[in-house]
Amino acid sequence: MTTIALDAMGGDHGVAVTVPAALAVLTRAPGVNLILVGQRDPISAELNRRHAQESPRLRVHPASEVVGMDEPPAQALRGKKDSSMRVAIDLVKQGTAQAAVSAGNTGALMATARFVLKTLPGIDRPAIITSLPTMRGHVHALDLGANVDCSPEQLLQFAIMGSILVAAIEGKARPRVGLLNVGEEDIKGNEVVKKTHELLRASALNYCGYVEGDEIYTGDMDVIVCDGFVGNVMLKTSEGLARMITHFIKEEFKRNMLTKLAALVSLPVLSAFRRRVDPRRYNGATLIGLNGTVIKSHGGADTLAFENAVRVAIAEANNQVPERIGRELAAMQAQAAVAS
Amino acid sequence: MTTIALDAMGGDHGVAVTVPAALAVLTRAPGVNLILVGQRDPISAELNRRHAQESPRLRVHPASEVVGMDEPPAQALRGKKDSSMRVAIDLVKQGTAQAAVSAGNTGALMATARFVLKTLPGIDRPAIITSLPTMRGHVHALDLGANVDCSPEQLLQFAIMGSILVAAIEGKARPRVGLLNVGEEDIKGNEVVKKTHELLRASALNYCGYVEGDEIYTGDMDVIVCDGFVGNVMLKTSEGLARMITHFIKEEFKRNMLTKLAALVSLPVLSAFRRRVDPRRYNGATLIGLNGTVIKSHGGADTLAFENAVRVAIAEANNQVPERIGRELAAMQAQAAVAS
Repeated sequence: MTTIALDAMGGDHGVAVTVPAALAVLTRAPGVNLILVGQRDPISAELNRRHAQESPRLRVHPASEVVGMDEPPAQALRGKKDSSMRVAIDLVKQGTAQAAVSAGNTGALMATARFVLKTLPGIDRPAIITSLPTMRGHVHALDLGANVDCSPEQLLQFAIMGSILVAAIEGKARPRVGLLNVGEEDIKGNEVVKKTHELLRASALNYCGYVEGDEIYTGDMDVIVCDGFVGNVMLKTSEGLARMITHFIKEEFKRNMLTKLAALVSLPVLSAFRRRVDPRRYNGATLIGLNGTVIKSHGGADTLAFENAVRVAIAEANNQVPERIGRELAAMQAQAAVAS
Repeated sequence: MTTIALDAMGGDHGVAVTVPAALAVLTRAPGVNLILVGQRDPISAELNRRHAQESPRLRVHPASEVVGMDEPPAQALRGKKDSSMRVAIDLVKQGTAQAAVSAGNTGALMATARFVLKTLPGIDRPAIITSLPTMRGHVHALDLGANVDCSPEQLLQFAIMGSILVAAIEGKARPRVGLLNVGEEDIKGNEVVKKTHELLRASALNYCGYVEGDEIYTGDMDVIVCDGFVGNVMLKTSEGLARMITHFIKEEFKRNMLTKLAALVSLPVLSAFRRRVDPRRYNGATLIGLNGTVIKSHGGADTLAFENAVRVAIAEANNQVPERIGRELAAMQAQAAVAS
């Protein structure tokens, strides 16, 4: 039985999103128990409003404090030891839950998760990884914002972790790994990227070389590696552009009576299209590199989006991603010790 | 009278694109003369094929060599002194043309332009700037790949140049400048970005602070500043994502008879949409920071796209962008000298 701890208070909408998402997960994932972590009153009120109640599969675990969306991570970490975010992660640490999900502020979540769970041996710093749609399936990209400056060694660690995650979750034996770079310069890339390229070539990973930004969405790679600054810009730019394109399509279909008629006729097509690029279906980023699974949901997630983040948590818990990463890193270090 | 020198041989399609694009420009821009630079035979053959000929408005200037699309910049610069790319830029240097346009390889074009035209006083290195569509108009972003590592001082120079370009071309008195950053970290951004933020705040520019990737396309800024690595990833990611979304829309409309009918009804809407995000309409990036105007077209540009790059060249030549940047930099330096 897999148990997931949900930070019920996190995100822009708190219990109004986390509680109905939890109820939806209970229906759709029979083998999963959930723990709603947070202030008992608002959680109970929300459960009542939805004619639901606590049960062995849906427990409420009290936590008196809430981390604000703009609260500095250090303050959240030191000052709010009974926050819903912190207690949810504590439950993972204690082994009561196999993963925690929070829509709370990323900085505080990362700081708390690192403090409570610690990074895996051989990992300098955790990274943020998520799945993105491509022309043929999807791709996992990391780091998406946890580390603005990365050493080649860290980028190699990201590649290893991303590779193990994809292998574990999708059953791909040798995920294709690409290193994000630019193609405009004489001697491509900066020093860090060039050094990382050498490390990746010398590794046992299925490293496929440099990829440029336009190759992220082709589906030719399973894992894209980059530093957190570049990855965050890439992710946010994509979100902004998708929003603009959707906006343009809407505008064009609303232009006059004739185009409105066309929209009506095209409704099933447009809905199918929207489902396909719906960012909510890709909600749920993993804080990877920790002794435990912690999933970050978008702060503004609605029920469907938060439910998806919980699904990501379930998949990673069921596939014991942190344990696998730990084992493979230990094996690699043992090998390196023998070789040297 | 404005004269533009076209590298007729550059790009994936050479004269098959540059010559018809030149003919289209001549029709649509009465105040402009063009010089087709390259090998006389293929240019003449292409002109003949299109029942066109040399005229005072459309001269052919011979250049015997062609820079390959994958040719190392140093080799192109040293080994091909009579390349169409080089001669087109020489014509700008001599004052025969007010701008050069090439679809040839970016590295070689940048190296040649720097060597022949030199950077403006006060500018360490040129950058690549282009216009991108937004929800409400468009935005200019730089650097898009010329400089993978940038100092805060260089990023400030980019901001100044971008600001002057937008002011000159669009008549905006005080273009809004945003600095691309990430929002996930406790203390946002890396050291270079933070230092740049301080420099921009202390500058006379209309600096509006940090922007994240998803704010590029909202239209809230006129100029977005970032280093060439991040800018290149941002640009290419956008291209790749736009391609994927267009592909998805097509696929959904082709699914069955009913959706094909919907596509037929929606044809005018879809065409209007496609025009709006058509990357060809945004073709033409400026190598900014030089003593002269050089425009880089996409290598794979078709006639419409190359024609657009020529339009960018005309606008910048008519508005004397390099001269303005030079004047404003000199004024700033004089002011700084007085202040210190």
